[in-house]
Amino acid sequence: MQFVASEHPHRRLNPLNGQWVLVCPHRTQRPWSGQQEKAQKNELPEFDPTNPLCPGVTRPNGIQTPKYESTYVFENDFPALVEVVPVPPNSDDPLFQIAPARGNCRVMCFHPKSNLTLPTMSAAEIAVVIDEWISQFNELSAKYAWVQIFENKGATMGCSNPHPHCQIWSCSFLPTEPQLKQERLRAYYATNERPMLADYVERELQRQERIVIENPDWVVVVPFWATWPFETMLISRNNNKRINDLTTKQRYNLALTMKELTTKYDNLFQCSFPYSMGWHGAPTGPEHAHASSAHWTLHAIYYPPLLRSASVRKFMVGFELLAMAQRDLTPEQAAQRLRDVDGKRHYLEK
Amino acid sequence: MQFVASEHPHRRLNPLNGQWVLVCPHRTQRPWSGQQEKAQKNELPEFDPTNPLCPGVTRPNGIQTPKYESTYVFENDFPALVEVVPVPPNSDDPLFQIAPARGNCRVMCFHPKSNLTLPTMSAAEIAVVIDEWISQFNELSAKYAWVQIFENKGATMGCSNPHPHCQIWSCSFLPTEPQLKQERLRAYYATNERPMLADYVERELQRQERIVIENPDWVVVVPFWATWPFETMLISRNNNKRINDLTTKQRYNLALTMKELTTKYDNLFQCSFPYSMGWHGAPTGPEHAHASSAHWTLHAIYYPPLLRSASVRKFMVGFELLAMAQRDLTPEQAAQRLRDVDGKRHYLEK
Ligand SMILES: O=P(O)(O)O[C@H]1O[C@H](CO)[C@@H](O)[C@H](O)[C@H]1O
Ligand SMILES: O=P(O)(O)O[C@H]1O[C@H](CO)[C@@H](O)[C@H](O)[C@H]1O
Repeated sequence: MQFVASEHPHRRLNPLNGQWVLVCPHRTQRPWSGQQEKAQKNELPEFDPTNPLCPGVTRPNGIQTPKYESTYVFENDFPALVEVVPVPPNSDDPLFQIAPARGNCRVMCFHPKSNLTLPTMSAAEIAVVIDEWISQFNELSAKYAWVQIFENKGATMGCSNPHPHCQIWSCSFLPTEPQLKQERLRAYYATNERPMLADYVERELQRQERIVIENPDWVVVVPFWATWPFETMLISRNNNKRINDLTTKQRYNLALTMKELTTKYDNLFQCSFPYSMGWHGAPTGPEHAHASSAHWTLHAIYYPPLLRSASVRKFMVGFELLAMAQRDLTPEQAAQRLRDVDGKRHYLEK
Repeated sequence: MQFVASEHPHRRLNPLNGQWVLVCPHRTQRPWSGQQEKAQKNELPEFDPTNPLCPGVTRPNGIQTPKYESTYVFENDFPALVEVVPVPPNSDDPLFQIAPARGNCRVMCFHPKSNLTLPTMSAAEIAVVIDEWISQFNELSAKYAWVQIFENKGATMGCSNPHPHCQIWSCSFLPTEPQLKQERLRAYYATNERPMLADYVERELQRQERIVIENPDWVVVVPFWATWPFETMLISRNNNKRINDLTTKQRYNLALTMKELTTKYDNLFQCSFPYSMGWHGAPTGPEHAHASSAHWTLHAIYYPPLLRSASVRKFMVGFELLAMAQRDLTPEQAAQRLRDVDGKRHYLEK
């Protein structure tokens, strides 16, 4: 019998973290009487006087959110990380290792209206979001080793407030995922004298099997090693290292690309498609200011949980937590579906 | 200012996988208008004629589930892994690495009645489950490098059928998590000439800060590096390497310990507490038959998602997926709450 990737279980290596993913095509056929997600239809009002993220509303701590007109950034009232914090005592026991964690957590509203999301905002409005990301990054990257810009979209992805927003958590240290990536990208560069993701994009463009969107500045691809059902990477084609390297044209093309990708996502199951997404680029802060970033390529990663429909998600549970990442359709099948679905007109537009 | 673990953000090292966890105490205070879980109240009937896991019911593939009276094991009708599968072609491109995956997936019903769960079964009935785990393990470990016994409990943890059951996925290869653990345990043993988890249990018993249950055969501890809010490890105190080493007395004590732990879990938020749990021990199969397992200690891990109540869970999303594991209360606080809650009488008993 000949091996057919879309039929036969197999493993694929994620070269960015060195871990294997188990690919089990056709498992999506199994009966499902488990949890049903509420499909997010976004029936929110434009303005909700009880939502602290809306312009002019007073937050629980008594501070009033200004009547902002585009984006608005503020310090998280319940930050995971804070700037000034005592250093834990040293331990020489390898089983009880503790280390300092300093940082800062901000919330960034994308738009004054609660009932919009990135795919239903205009490209010009998305460009304003990107500009704000960059100005935040400029400030925070001067101080911190890692600035994690990320969006949890939808209640299914743990978003605790439905107003369109993202978060920016800055860290005095390199967290696990960027640390693993840093090591792998560096090792690849040492051998190949090329950034791994530049080579990767080139080969994906030749193969065309997993490409979802391509334009002169950006490529969207379902990675060969994708874990989440419709996971994608949005990768710079211009050897950008960090989000604040982008030219005005690259930023505007990014806004168009993000609008197209998120419109495809919403159209796939005709719902406000939940995901967590975020940016990865070369580390920052005084510590990394003089290190080479030649091995890095700026990219965003989208982790969307939906598997079969607006109401059936993929759970990363038992086997995945205890053994390894596992997916139920091939990355090629996911890419095909994302390629085929309309990215220009949102399903809510008539 | 002096460092206080229950107040100040910090990182802790998981020595079993080499990754750091960010601990952010007091974040549980933040307002929550996100997703509410349906509290699982288990209002199922004892017998559901439409549920293929119930005794006597015909499954979608036409096979009838026998009228079993204790446990019942069958091959998953939609297996992620199969025994005979063509081998993928070799690739010498480091960015497109693919590898074979052979295996086998079984479903194991714990009890004929749909409306029971481990904490509401008797210790004698749980002992039967453990015996069946062992006989399955005996058979499968002869052939496969890794036999992952795991239970997804509750719709919140992706359980697709509410009848009490677990799964057993066997793999021709060592998956990511056991592979990392194997390396770390081996390195520790090489330096210390003691199994890491034996040392760990000893020190936790001295400190008593994170112990939830202890008896002569077993310890339940919220690990110093726990990621999930009420994560625990159930660790053998008898230098067991694999589940099929257990003596009759150790098995029966395990049944009592599992009943006590899961009763505590249910009582904590007065609901059928969801979790994913599974067993880790020394690798198996012809490949590992002659390798030393001296560095291993048999243990189960429980990953429960609930954070604040029966309806508010912890989401492992944006920052956690893109950067690193993060938790909102300290392991010591979680252990204290689990210690304090009754483990002898289930909240549904009057
Ligand atoms: O096999 P089940 O119960 O249908 O599926 C459940 O457990 C599997 C193993 O952890 C996961 O891959 C699935 O996402 C989950 O829904
Ligand atoms: O900060 P939020 O939106 O309240 O919280 C959300 O994002 C955080 C960062 O990924 C997670 O730690 C939380 O579990 C999630 O609910």
